[in-house]
Amino acid sequence: MDISQQERTYETPMADKSTPSSLARYLDGEFWETKDHIREEISQGEPFRTSSYGLTLDQNRDLTVERLEYILTRPLMRHHLKDQDSEFTGMFAMTERGHGSNVRGILTEACYEPSTQEFIIHTPCEDAQKMYIGNSMKGNYASVFAQLIINGDSQGPHCFIVPIRDRHGVMNPGVTAIDMKHKEGLHGVDNGILIFDNVRIPRTNLLSKFGCVSADGLYSSPVQNKSKRFNAMLAALTPTRLGLTVQAIAAMKLGLIIAVRYSHSRRQFGPKDQQEVKIIEHQTQYLRLMPHLAAALALTFTTRFAACMMDHALCKGEVLQNNSSLQALVAGLKAYSTWENLACLQECRECTGGMGFMMENRIPALKCDSDVFVTFEGDNVVMLQVVVKELMTQFTRQLGNSVVGGLIKTWTSSVSDRLRTSFLGFNVDTVGDLSFLLKAVSYRERVLQRSLATRLYNKVEKKREEFFDAWNSCLHHVTGLALAHIHRVTLEQFALAVQECPVEEDHTLLTKFCLLHGTSLVYQERAWYLEHHYLTPTTSRQIRTQLLELCRSVKDEALKVVSDFNVPSCCIQAPIAGVANPRAEWAFYSAPEHPITASKL
Amino acid sequence: MDISQQERTYETPMADKSTPSSLARYLDGEFWETKDHIREEISQGEPFRTSSYGLTLDQNRDLTVERLEYILTRPLMRHHLKDQDSEFTGMFAMTERGHGSNVRGILTEACYEPSTQEFIIHTPCEDAQKMYIGNSMKGNYASVFAQLIINGDSQGPHCFIVPIRDRHGVMNPGVTAIDMKHKEGLHGVDNGILIFDNVRIPRTNLLSKFGCVSADGLYSSPVQNKSKRFNAMLAALTPTRLGLTVQAIAAMKLGLIIAVRYSHSRRQFGPKDQQEVKIIEHQTQYLRLMPHLAAALALTFTTRFAACMMDHALCKGEVLQNNSSLQALVAGLKAYSTWENLACLQECRECTGGMGFMMENRIPALKCDSDVFVTFEGDNVVMLQVVVKELMTQFTRQLGNSVVGGLIKTWTSSVSDRLRTSFLGFNVDTVGDLSFLLKAVSYRERVLQRSLATRLYNKVEKKREEFFDAWNSCLHHVTGLALAHIHRVTLEQFALAVQECPVEEDHTLLTKFCLLHGTSLVYQERAWYLEHHYLTPTTSRQIRTQLLELCRSVKDEALKVVSDFNVPSCCIQAPIAGVANPRAEWAFYSAPEHPITASKL
Repeated sequence: MDISQQERTYETPMADKSTPSSLARYLDGEFWETKDHIREEISQGEPFRTSSYGLTLDQNRDLTVERLEYILTRPLMRHHLKDQDSEFTGMFAMTERGHGSNVRGILTEACYEPSTQEFIIHTPCEDAQKMYIGNSMKGNYASVFAQLIINGDSQGPHCFIVPIRDRHGVMNPGVTAIDMKHKEGLHGVDNGILIFDNVRIPRTNLLSKFGCVSADGLYSSPVQNKSKRFNAMLAALTPTRLGLTVQAIAAMKLGLIIAVRYSHSRRQFGPKDQQEVKIIEHQTQYLRLMPHLAAALALTFTTRFAACMMDHALCKGEVLQNNSSLQALVAGLKAYSTWENLACLQECRECTGGMGFMMENRIPALKCDSDVFVTFEGDNVVMLQVVVKELMTQFTRQLGNSVVGGLIKTWTSSVSDRLRTSFLGFNVDTVGDLSFLLKAVSYRERVLQRSLATRLYNKVEKKREEFFDAWNSCLHHVTGLALAHIHRVTLEQFALAVQECPVEEDHTLLTKFCLLHGTSLVYQERAWYLEHHYLTPTTSRQIRTQLLELCRSVKDEALKVVSDFNVPSCCIQAPIAGVANPRAEWAFYSAPEHPITASKL
Repeated sequence: MDISQQERTYETPMADKSTPSSLARYLDGEFWETKDHIREEISQGEPFRTSSYGLTLDQNRDLTVERLEYILTRPLMRHHLKDQDSEFTGMFAMTERGHGSNVRGILTEACYEPSTQEFIIHTPCEDAQKMYIGNSMKGNYASVFAQLIINGDSQGPHCFIVPIRDRHGVMNPGVTAIDMKHKEGLHGVDNGILIFDNVRIPRTNLLSKFGCVSADGLYSSPVQNKSKRFNAMLAALTPTRLGLTVQAIAAMKLGLIIAVRYSHSRRQFGPKDQQEVKIIEHQTQYLRLMPHLAAALALTFTTRFAACMMDHALCKGEVLQNNSSLQALVAGLKAYSTWENLACLQECRECTGGMGFMMENRIPALKCDSDVFVTFEGDNVVMLQVVVKELMTQFTRQLGNSVVGGLIKTWTSSVSDRLRTSFLGFNVDTVGDLSFLLKAVSYRERVLQRSLATRLYNKVEKKREEFFDAWNSCLHHVTGLALAHIHRVTLEQFALAVQECPVEEDHTLLTKFCLLHGTSLVYQERAWYLEHHYLTPTTSRQIRTQLLELCRSVKDEALKVVSDFNVPSCCIQAPIAGVANPRAEWAFYSAPEHPITASKL
């Protein structure tokens, strides 16, 4: 063959470390040293050098185990694992065939038998089978949510530790595990079905934080109201949901690194008889990618804020179920971040054309793996209702039973203060200003709040509609309010992070992206602002012009930002991002025009 | 085990035929008999009883070959294949490593050698490698696009037949084929790279419709202008693009069948102490699905309209490159339908929760397979530019070179007439009326046309900006106009189909969905209408109320519509749609509450 191969100068998956910039440090935040340490461990880890596409289910699952074991045996992790014992693995068994979102309706039974001081865990019907249980093919113990039944009466769902198989993989009698096999993504996780046929466990296997049973079968709980008890139990999901948000942001960042680098190296079309331009120069290209980059930054800061709140609460020994504002924030953040991630990855896929459809370029697997984020750990539409319901509960607790009536009266004492996400004061007031944008998103939230409360009040209190029906007929409004709430919080947290940024040039850069995020939020909802005369047709057009202009103005700096995400090369491995993928020699390799490699050549 | 298995009454993949309804016939249109025949053939075909998920690449590819062979050997197809010869298979080799969207820049060379009367096909550099070529691992011949070079001068891209491997699979000397392996979807297609090292082919292997070379090396073409010649060649892609639209609609329909049936059988949440409600009853659920169902109907009728235009043109012996309006329509339809399909499938995935993430329920593979539709056979953003450029060309052809100047002058003589998609006359004029909606989408298109022409005129003619830069700075406007154009066409075609529907109850049903489609289009762009004072804040709110109300009012009839898509059970095979999937016994099976099975039980 007579092809003159272009000289390739791309990063290897094991590229050298370079000193992170001040912005990279700022994006990492307080725990940057730990994060750097983990980056190094991962970069040196053999199991992270292979990509998982095209493997069989079993190979994929084995790779997951291998990666997990590698992580757990690092000194940093061994230090944190209390007894350094990872002999057994567990699983979380909540969802059933018949009940996913509405967990309250689960059917698995745990009947107490005083004579043996045992619970009998049982699956009474097909709908009661535990479904989608991760680690179901290998795990030793399951924390099983079941109706706690004493003398035929249910005390509501409680959590029990049930042995599934011993250390040699031999199944516990009465337990059946069925592999659910093929999913859209997350091929490394062995989701399966668990069925219990009168499995006996000792009384002490009930996790007794929210209720316990005495030897002779007397039930007691620190939370008397069954419904509140159930909600308290669900509050345990809050940290998991925040973890999911972090994963969604990580997927977004990786997608953006790949799409932005490719857009800055690939050329296509251009002025007549001149060199083709980089595709990032096409107006549609930067318009599709830049708002997501701004959102990724906003989410980074907002998630850190939520994590701080959670740390703070846990350090004070608070039980999370009493912290409604945190629960609402995390539920909203989970919904917004996971949807935003999917939208972002889809744009990244499309903006990288056919290259983005190839597995070696990572975006397809990121999409498929994170697609389920929007429906698991609390379906997003349910999460948005949690946001609004928690806000209502919080404000009407002291006002007795009339939830919506009380709501209207107190709404103006402002949700935002209680959520510690209050409005920031600014002086100037033109459309292009951050102060305008902050006020706009705050205004929208407040108006949606008041009008929802009024609507519900009229339906429930005046027209005596069943609450479920009234709520359901307002569901579009409810989801709109929840998103408006979380949008406002992300913009405010971004603005705060900009204010606190110590390095001037980073401050300048972040300011532009913060403006872009706010402009993008207002642009998306400009119809609403026009309907409410908050924008005039002229200022609405200005918002659009501003969006286009901001996207254009940050497109080159985007290279620096994605570089400052500081993702190790071994985690990128996308040829179109200029990082070698050993499994795809033939792939299209971008020339390294991004800052991170400039210093290395 | 002591589980009382629910009695399952679902369709088998080979369910009996039932007589299609009048609506099913109307949706099939003129060629319903042929379609029924194909449905029957597919239902009886062994290769269509297996689903392809979880197979290896090779197994997947073999299954594709098996299915293709089955189809090609059916009497109906044998009748249409002229010489009944499928001994050899081919491939289409246009895209290169360096040039996808901008095909004009391809680098593969075809140099003519008069002494031997041969073309020498050659890949001069890495960027010239043919990429993403389907059937590259098995095919015998490729139609290769290459720069036709005579005596060192290029006559632009032409198409050549190049032998790749003989009937025994032995490679033609000088040809290299590299497997590109793993993609997000379409695993049954073996996309690969073709590289040519001075491969000699006879002079007669040039496809000479747009240019030929005499034995002694004289070039001649019916199209003198190189640029026009190139465009004429690209017009050959028009039928493929229409085919892609048909595939996108098919994927939408299948996704909707699955999501709508599941939504009508799955119950979750409900009024206190009462049975849970079907999830279709949740406002967000019907709001997410119904507009896509309306769009699927609109696209069905619009695609048939485009296919009629194409048939008509081809029967008259017209060359498609002279039919700009058809090219614009098909390009726009390709972009709109493929994006609409992705949005629809994503909602179907999310509306079916965790069940929709399982491969046996089909939606994930539909998404992954059709994801590439938006960037291949002409990237959608490029397609939208084709729409607008073709419209401009058509109207300025007689006015000399000043494209945009001429454009402004003649724009008011209306694009719509020339596209044979003219505005329909109606009398009444309130927001809820179809006449209002039709006028609104038509108004939006016209205003966007005029304002774009004015902007381009100012930039190019007055400010003397380079055309590429001027165009690029208006790209957001361009894509907006193109979509406005195709939106208007789909609504008009839907309205025409409603007018012509002969059965009264079908007419009534389609009218509702047509109103929903129009309402949804106007709702999406209500910000624009508010900016242009076409909607007042009050009428804008009315549009939202109307959208909610229409979605609610059609949610039950949706079951009939998806049933009338008349997709054979073997093509559904999704347990959550109530059709057995033999590979997923353990899956969640919906009870059959849909009309199609009611008659069969």
